[in-house]
Amino acid sequence: MIKSLIFSFSLFFLVSCQNKPVLKSITVNNAEELHQSIKKAKAGDIIILKNGIWKDVEIKFRGQGTLENPITLKAETAGKVSIEGVSYLKFGGQYLVVDGLHFKNGYSPSSAVVDFKISDEEIASNCKLTNCVIEDFNKLKRDNSDLWVNFWGRHNELSNCYIAGKTNRGPTVRVNLEGIASINNYHQVINNHFGPRPVKGGPSGETIQLGNSYTSMAPSYTMVANNLFEACNGEVEIISSKTNFNEFRNNVFYKSEGSLVTRHGNYCTIDGNYFIGDGVNKNYGGIRIINTGHWVTNNYFFNLKGTSFRSPLAVMNGIPKSPQNRYNQVTDVVVAYNTYVNCASPWQFGVGTNIAQANVLPKSEIRSARAVRTTVANNIIYNEKGLNKIVVENDKADGVLFKNNIADNQGVAFNDFNGGIKAAALGLKKVSENIFLPTGLPDDVEVFSAFGFNKIDKDLFGKSRKNSKTIGATLSSDITNPNILDKSKYGTSWYSNVVDAKAPTKHQVNKAEELQNKIHAASQGDIITLNEGIYSVNQSLIINKTITIQAQEGKKVEINFSGTSDKPLFALHPKGRLTVNNLTLKGNKKNYAFASLKENMSNHFGLTVSNINISDFNYVLKVYKESFAERISFLNTNISNCENGIELSEEINDKGDYNTEYLTVDSCLFNNVKANVIDYYRGGYDESTIGGNLLVKQNTFINCGAKEKNKMLLNHRGIVNVNITKNTFKNNAIEFVAILWGAKNNIESANKFTNSGSIKTEENLKMKLMY
Amino acid sequence: MIKSLIFSFSLFFLVSCQNKPVLKSITVNNAEELHQSIKKAKAGDIIILKNGIWKDVEIKFRGQGTLENPITLKAETAGKVSIEGVSYLKFGGQYLVVDGLHFKNGYSPSSAVVDFKISDEEIASNCKLTNCVIEDFNKLKRDNSDLWVNFWGRHNELSNCYIAGKTNRGPTVRVNLEGIASINNYHQVINNHFGPRPVKGGPSGETIQLGNSYTSMAPSYTMVANNLFEACNGEVEIISSKTNFNEFRNNVFYKSEGSLVTRHGNYCTIDGNYFIGDGVNKNYGGIRIINTGHWVTNNYFFNLKGTSFRSPLAVMNGIPKSPQNRYNQVTDVVVAYNTYVNCASPWQFGVGTNIAQANVLPKSEIRSARAVRTTVANNIIYNEKGLNKIVVENDKADGVLFKNNIADNQGVAFNDFNGGIKAAALGLKKVSENIFLPTGLPDDVEVFSAFGFNKIDKDLFGKSRKNSKTIGATLSSDITNPNILDKSKYGTSWYSNVVDAKAPTKHQVNKAEELQNKIHAASQGDIITLNEGIYSVNQSLIINKTITIQAQEGKKVEINFSGTSDKPLFALHPKGRLTVNNLTLKGNKKNYAFASLKENMSNHFGLTVSNINISDFNYVLKVYKESFAERISFLNTNISNCENGIELSEEINDKGDYNTEYLTVDSCLFNNVKANVIDYYRGGYDESTIGGNLLVKQNTFINCGAKEKNKMLLNHRGIVNVNITKNTFKNNAIEFVAILWGAKNNIESANKFTNSGSIKTEENLKMKLMY
Repeated sequence: MIKSLIFSFSLFFLVSCQNKPVLKSITVNNAEELHQSIKKAKAGDIIILKNGIWKDVEIKFRGQGTLENPITLKAETAGKVSIEGVSYLKFGGQYLVVDGLHFKNGYSPSSAVVDFKISDEEIASNCKLTNCVIEDFNKLKRDNSDLWVNFWGRHNELSNCYIAGKTNRGPTVRVNLEGIASINNYHQVINNHFGPRPVKGGPSGETIQLGNSYTSMAPSYTMVANNLFEACNGEVEIISSKTNFNEFRNNVFYKSEGSLVTRHGNYCTIDGNYFIGDGVNKNYGGIRIINTGHWVTNNYFFNLKGTSFRSPLAVMNGIPKSPQNRYNQVTDVVVAYNTYVNCASPWQFGVGTNIAQANVLPKSEIRSARAVRTTVANNIIYNEKGLNKIVVENDKADGVLFKNNIADNQGVAFNDFNGGIKAAALGLKKVSENIFLPTGLPDDVEVFSAFGFNKIDKDLFGKSRKNSKTIGATLSSDITNPNILDKSKYGTSWYSNVVDAKAPTKHQVNKAEELQNKIHAASQGDIITLNEGIYSVNQSLIINKTITIQAQEGKKVEINFSGTSDKPLFALHPKGRLTVNNLTLKGNKKNYAFASLKENMSNHFGLTVSNINISDFNYVLKVYKESFAERISFLNTNISNCENGIELSEEINDKGDYNTEYLTVDSCLFNNVKANVIDYYRGGYDESTIGGNLLVKQNTFINCGAKEKNKMLLNHRGIVNVNITKNTFKNNAIEFVAILWGAKNNIESANKFTNSGSIKTEENLKMKLMY
Repeated sequence: MIKSLIFSFSLFFLVSCQNKPVLKSITVNNAEELHQSIKKAKAGDIIILKNGIWKDVEIKFRGQGTLENPITLKAETAGKVSIEGVSYLKFGGQYLVVDGLHFKNGYSPSSAVVDFKISDEEIASNCKLTNCVIEDFNKLKRDNSDLWVNFWGRHNELSNCYIAGKTNRGPTVRVNLEGIASINNYHQVINNHFGPRPVKGGPSGETIQLGNSYTSMAPSYTMVANNLFEACNGEVEIISSKTNFNEFRNNVFYKSEGSLVTRHGNYCTIDGNYFIGDGVNKNYGGIRIINTGHWVTNNYFFNLKGTSFRSPLAVMNGIPKSPQNRYNQVTDVVVAYNTYVNCASPWQFGVGTNIAQANVLPKSEIRSARAVRTTVANNIIYNEKGLNKIVVENDKADGVLFKNNIADNQGVAFNDFNGGIKAAALGLKKVSENIFLPTGLPDDVEVFSAFGFNKIDKDLFGKSRKNSKTIGATLSSDITNPNILDKSKYGTSWYSNVVDAKAPTKHQVNKAEELQNKIHAASQGDIITLNEGIYSVNQSLIINKTITIQAQEGKKVEINFSGTSDKPLFALHPKGRLTVNNLTLKGNKKNYAFASLKENMSNHFGLTVSNINISDFNYVLKVYKESFAERISFLNTNISNCENGIELSEEINDKGDYNTEYLTVDSCLFNNVKANVIDYYRGGYDESTIGGNLLVKQNTFINCGAKEKNKMLLNHRGIVNVNITKNTFKNNAIEFVAILWGAKNNIESANKFTNSGSIKTEENLKMKLMY
């Protein structure tokens, strides 16, 4: 049956001396009208989506616009059209523009939210997504991979968009180069605001990925410029450049836990970017270099405390004759005219060297090829506290030419690499909160020049270097504040991610029946306080927001949970970030205290357990596969008479994934927890996932592990950072308290063992190769 | 002491409206004058080398010319200045031209004869070697590698040169891309005549190599155009392209045993070339494709009988995640508008698949990745004898799109790949001896088009394809003979490699004392006939030219050699190609019948032994390391009572080298040869050296091998082509007559064994990996 469609047509007749065609503007009210309008659209047409929620809409935007007369699909009011539910947008054709849409409360049923192709035969060129927001548009399961913006074809553009909140597998934005039609693409990713992307807990959480190792020979020429990256923490690579001739210009990387990485491909230009840290967080990175021919110029690095992979400049060792998907040697790289202020380890070379692991890794994994034909020149380093080393050589930097660099290291001596790094006493001038520029260069500063250096003809602020004899990212420190963090300069015209701080509302609960309703009614961040008494609960309490549940200090609150087998007292749903404080929780030996969803954990959760007595559960915490919490903490808590303890060990397909970034167990007592006392797993050999983090501190473990099959109390195989300190282990019927991974950051100290086995270190754990 | 130099100055004062500087022309008489002149040379200067032989001259040509006013170094008369002895030419600077020199009778003491750099700091750009000849300028030892023209820098040129006769290790011409100054080089290799390069007998005998695997990511943009390649037989790759964006246009590959190979690197253009065979020789190849993004268009293939690696189009399988120096998968390749006439196997896919060898090779050597995203369209195939297969699938061609190709297969049915190759009855028009063009395409021929096809805008002859609806390399067969083999179109203005055929002179010899003198006096190709009698020789006879030594039929001539231990009767020197016929040769049990030089075998030798009785030598033939013969044949010859037989087994460093291309032993009798009866060795796993060739046919072996330590009569480990047929083996005290290499072309048939062990086949010989 064919519905008779009522379209609202608005026709504008334009007269022009250039013989432009008549422009037609059509407002559509639903998916069917939209599809019909797209079908009829001609160059110059504008299709307007009526304001409101568009649910479960699969838009295949195909058409043939022209440079002068594109076909435009736009929101009636920018930001007032939301695309929700099971939806996507695909471009096919040329000169198509999409403007003003808000993707939220949903996910794509396909491999991308926005795709620049409809099929291999319908690939977009000269198309543009602009002034749109994509927010929390996650697939239901973390392992279900997708892209949010998926480039194909040539000359397409992502501009002035705000994109944030991706938690599932897959880069946020990817450029694909398979096929002749998608090389030499000259795509533009410009003026966007990439908002927070939470830690993913494993690989494949890049914000931008340009190509992949299999297309790493392709000429890409993608431009990534003038974007703000804010808290893009998905994984170690914020931008993973895997093709040739890409350019990264004038971007701001602000408190983002990762680096701009030239992972594959060659001849990239990284010019005029800001990398801003907070002086504390060691996960904020800079630029990590692999492969050939990159130019790193005019960049500014401030307050970055990262080292090794996360150094402001991390030049990796390659694998001789590297397999296509591994690490090529660094050659012919130039690092010139950059400024590093208060960075913990400005320059590292030989990063990733793993010669010591030759006995557990195949030869094709050994990164022993040092950088060659590489020049580091005309850079300035300023450290308010002198460093022992300006250059950290994980492997010798003997293939690197250091020339005419200057460092103010507060008089602390350093290896100057044959005079290539000269000590000087500089000043520091504040330009803004995050920009401090060195001043007072010596009058006799020399500028190094070599083949191609004449092309570095502007400074960080775009000022001509002609006739100028100076080094560092800026010609001068006499500049007005460039306001790099003014968010109005990035993203859409209509959306801001700035949220006003709000004091939490407090809710009082007197009886068990009220509990779930109060939780439902509470707002993000609220606090629910239980009055003294015993609460009998037989249904799981659903936690799907940030909330605190507590008793007042000195008050005794006990929750007895009679839910059936394998049900949790607290069901941690997506976005459920629970803090419990000062409670007693009792189970029936079969059910659980806390658990994530068994599936469809489409967003992260969180858990802080403090001052709690927990007893008689099957599991204290059960975290299911594809669930992830940025932090899980057990503090000052007693756990007793439970079958199992804290379990986060279902990511067993060894792809580098794990279930929480930080697991902290501090000042707790474990008594008669029979198995899985702490069980936290990450599998797969992957040198670039550098989590999770386990801190086990000042706890007492008594009579635990009796049913632990592997005779180990604390299981944390594959976790990169482990610290077991100041604990007391007593009468635990196990063989080992833990086995530490010596080659990684696994340490123990000041633990006491009584009839409880011991802690052993294995230097190199054998892991499944992921690549 | 400073010599006072007498220069002959010729000053030309030119008046020009463009304010050109005064041009200065200087004639120099010796190396010292030359060096002084170079030191003083300014833009526009011309340095003239006086005619004659310049011996042991190391020319470092440094200077700063300009586009309008280069500095020129030229022969007084082009071709009358020969550079001989231990000499080289190095360019350093810009806009330098060398014109008219003849490099011969010598070799370079450095890594190149002509080098486009003096040091890493003095690299040439915009320099040119033109109108020169480099001939037989070989290092003394085959393993001593060098280049004859070694490109560095940018915009350099090799034009109108004749280059031939390289026998030592190393490509004739190489383009290097290490270092920023040598990428994006746009070098021109144009209008040259690459004359014969003999088979090298192992790898590293390319005529042109562009980069290497370690710089295979570099953009090169080298142009190789309008060259004639004649008998460039050095190894399987005539041109080995190992970088990106190279162009091969309008070259003629004439009877050259090898292929144009895109060995590493990507995005090459191979357009408008001729590949001409003789209808017989299976070693003349075409284009072998590895890697991504190549366009093979408008090429003409005639009379090529090569298959597999040597097919006119050989598309290789790649290694998944290939190591950098091995085989990347073929992707995004276009083969369009080519014409194939009378080729034995026009198109092969999955070439080099070696999945069957998975148990002897590491995973990183297994070529299992088939071509993908590859298009074969608008080509014409004409076969005067129908082929069973137009497309040979060594592995499935399921990633290849065949579209609008036409084949006249004389009515023989073939797999048409879903209609992608249509059968048609065509005509064939003779344009010249080596160009026959199909005619009579069906009226309804369709032309396939896809992304990028619009750039194929000209045909083989440069005619515009605009408004034309036809397929194949040429728009029409109505063309005049393009005279592609007119040698005056290539190479220098003054040199021709055409030699008039000359009948051999016959020399008579009556006594032993005359023998060496007569050989010395004889010309290339002459015949020396010994009168009947017994010749007692006590010094080795030096053979350093092509010569025949014989007795007349029916006459009995016996040469008794009393030379000392390990001296040969016939000492085969460089270029010594000896035929002996109808003689009896006797040794003293300690000396040798034939041997190459122990070292400094700076050019190839050859040996044909027919109708000879050989007895009482230590070795019949001893070929030393780094010696090479294109052919060695023993025919109708009796060999008896020798300690050792035919030995060519010193290339034991397993780099793929061997000592003769063809070893033929036919209708001979071996009696009481104690060891090394036939010993012919090639070592190292190298899929692309596809020699040597051993034929052992119709021989009788009696009482041989008694002292053979490995208990094998015929040792030919590593030789790719072996045929042992119709022999009789009787009472040989060995275990195996031979062990055949099943995976290669090793066969045996119709042999008779009596008390002589047997022949065994091993499918996969374990070999040392070379790469």
